[in-house]
Amino acid sequence: MLFRSKKEVNERLNTVLYEINERALKLESEGKKIIRLNLGDPDLATPNEIIEAAYNAMKAGKTKYSSSYGELKLREKLAALHGVKAENVVITPGSKWGIFATMYLMLRGGGNVIIPTPYWTAYDLTAKSLGAKTKLLRTEMENGWKVDLDKLEAMIDKDTRMIILNNPNNPTSKVIDAETLDGIVEIANKKGVTILSDEVYSTIAFTKAKSILEYNGGHKHILSNGFSKTFTMTGWRIGYIIADKQLVDNITKLNQITINNVPVFIQEAALKGLEMEKQLATTIKDEYQERAKMATKTLAKAGLSFTKPEAPFYIFPKRQGLDSEKFTLELLDKGVAVAPGTSFGDYREHFRISLTAPREEIKKALDIISGALG
Amino acid sequence: MLFRSKKEVNERLNTVLYEINERALKLESEGKKIIRLNLGDPDLATPNEIIEAAYNAMKAGKTKYSSSYGELKLREKLAALHGVKAENVVITPGSKWGIFATMYLMLRGGGNVIIPTPYWTAYDLTAKSLGAKTKLLRTEMENGWKVDLDKLEAMIDKDTRMIILNNPNNPTSKVIDAETLDGIVEIANKKGVTILSDEVYSTIAFTKAKSILEYNGGHKHILSNGFSKTFTMTGWRIGYIIADKQLVDNITKLNQITINNVPVFIQEAALKGLEMEKQLATTIKDEYQERAKMATKTLAKAGLSFTKPEAPFYIFPKRQGLDSEKFTLELLDKGVAVAPGTSFGDYREHFRISLTAPREEIKKALDIISGALG
Repeated sequence: MLFRSKKEVNERLNTVLYEINERALKLESEGKKIIRLNLGDPDLATPNEIIEAAYNAMKAGKTKYSSSYGELKLREKLAALHGVKAENVVITPGSKWGIFATMYLMLRGGGNVIIPTPYWTAYDLTAKSLGAKTKLLRTEMENGWKVDLDKLEAMIDKDTRMIILNNPNNPTSKVIDAETLDGIVEIANKKGVTILSDEVYSTIAFTKAKSILEYNGGHKHILSNGFSKTFTMTGWRIGYIIADKQLVDNITKLNQITINNVPVFIQEAALKGLEMEKQLATTIKDEYQERAKMATKTLAKAGLSFTKPEAPFYIFPKRQGLDSEKFTLELLDKGVAVAPGTSFGDYREHFRISLTAPREEIKKALDIISGALG
Repeated sequence: MLFRSKKEVNERLNTVLYEINERALKLESEGKKIIRLNLGDPDLATPNEIIEAAYNAMKAGKTKYSSSYGELKLREKLAALHGVKAENVVITPGSKWGIFATMYLMLRGGGNVIIPTPYWTAYDLTAKSLGAKTKLLRTEMENGWKVDLDKLEAMIDKDTRMIILNNPNNPTSKVIDAETLDGIVEIANKKGVTILSDEVYSTIAFTKAKSILEYNGGHKHILSNGFSKTFTMTGWRIGYIIADKQLVDNITKLNQITINNVPVFIQEAALKGLEMEKQLATTIKDEYQERAKMATKTLAKAGLSFTKPEAPFYIFPKRQGLDSEKFTLELLDKGVAVAPGTSFGDYREHFRISLTAPREEIKKALDIISGALG
């Protein structure tokens, strides 16, 4: 058999979240107006200074193959920001690739990974694609999306290779409180399990999130981060992993046979972004806090329950009895794209709204959503 | 065990070729002048029109997440060029990623792949990284690097999932003659084995290479191609796979959990390149034919044997008794980077020269090489 069975590949790689996006893109290409609140793709434009930095680098000939580690200048800058050494940093084409590469190296050929839910779709799909098992640790809105430490500890077995945290969380926009995070790390250290902490929303969180790098007592926990959200660079595809040197070296070797390198002019653009980080992060936080205020008001009126967002972009409201996949497809026909709760685990009564559109459009979309809920 | 053993990962992902490159980069960063003839990275600059197309796209806001298939406009243009449908084309961040993705989907979990040698390093490393076996089909300079069809047929067993061709070949710059290619395809069809044909040097070959797409009798053979070589866009990371719709869909699903999308502004730049294809290909061919003429003259004088290059970039000379790894490291100390023959299979007496530097530098490097050979 040359190709794996279609069913098997579909089960491994398929998901409604991406289908909805491809469908929304198709409707748009046919001229239909869709308010796209289905992805974490900010409507704000990439700052001009970042674009100019890329352009200048291109003109300066930075268009060649380069190191699969990433540019040293950028690695050094990130190392300084995070209090590590440059040898602990590897640049990746988006944080998604960094997460895939890490999971590829640690889960290929088996084992299991514990993922608190609701989760970002790609973690689960990636683990399954690699032939690893996922153990889903359910958290509930009614309990403030808190990880139950006893349940976590009981879930770890001899095949557990990794715990994936997303802090702040997509889709709930919840920050893990310091006490719970301390507890998770303590359990992981005791059991010898590595934590991969995806902190891509951290810099722009409304509430301070503790980083996994604050727990550096010789443990091999891993940070994943990216430039997409803070610098409005989603489509540029640049992120990074911070880890012990051995894993960084191995990701680099995987880079050599896959993506080779992130274009150097994109790395120069990211470097420019880092210079402007404080200013940009403040602008984004202010704008999204306004949007969140507006949205939560309307959603509460429409009889939905949710926790208050502690980070930009997402709200994950619930309505008892809702079939969110059906609801999402109906909404798409009405010109609004959101993501069904089932894309983030067993949360059929929830759906995810991304506040990644101008306020006027969000307002319009919220009215359509309220109307559709009846 | 959380991390695989260091030894195992090294064996799977390590190679002298990449080590030499990282070492050359390091020497350069320390201020040492290295003439880099170790990679297929043209010294020519990316054409200005391509850079401007990228810049204009960035300014027009084409900096967002986009389809994991690639932009429809670009897929349609490539489909027209290759005589297929847009649904058969998926855009990848470099042809390397396209090859990895194809191998990931077809070889994950085992089977074997047949690779004629000398080969491009990444094929073998990728297969091994995925846990598949490689069966190396040796070809010899003395026999014009011809694939022995009987040996190929005998090598195919029930676990053989793929044959990888590189036409024209890196490192030999040899084009597979039409008769041999006909024979290879006939055997593959008879045995039900898929061919992955990497034709990244085809457009700029000095001798016409027959494409795998010319054999489209319902078989699922796969074309890999990229923009690096023809458009001097190595560091931009953009390529594509042409295959049956099912594989294109599955690569897209893998893209969704890994690289997500190639930046749209880079796809716009590639589209601009395609508009200028004829003109650019002619310029490159003319320049590299001159370089090849000069280099082959000097190398013959130095007592090396090789076949006449039928494509730009590479010459793969041989000297009886040479230890090319030792030789390569010595050369690096003398300021010239080339690649040892062992990076392309069991070819210790060969080394690979890339003619990817201005003529003056190539001349200087050839003199150093001749001197070092004694």
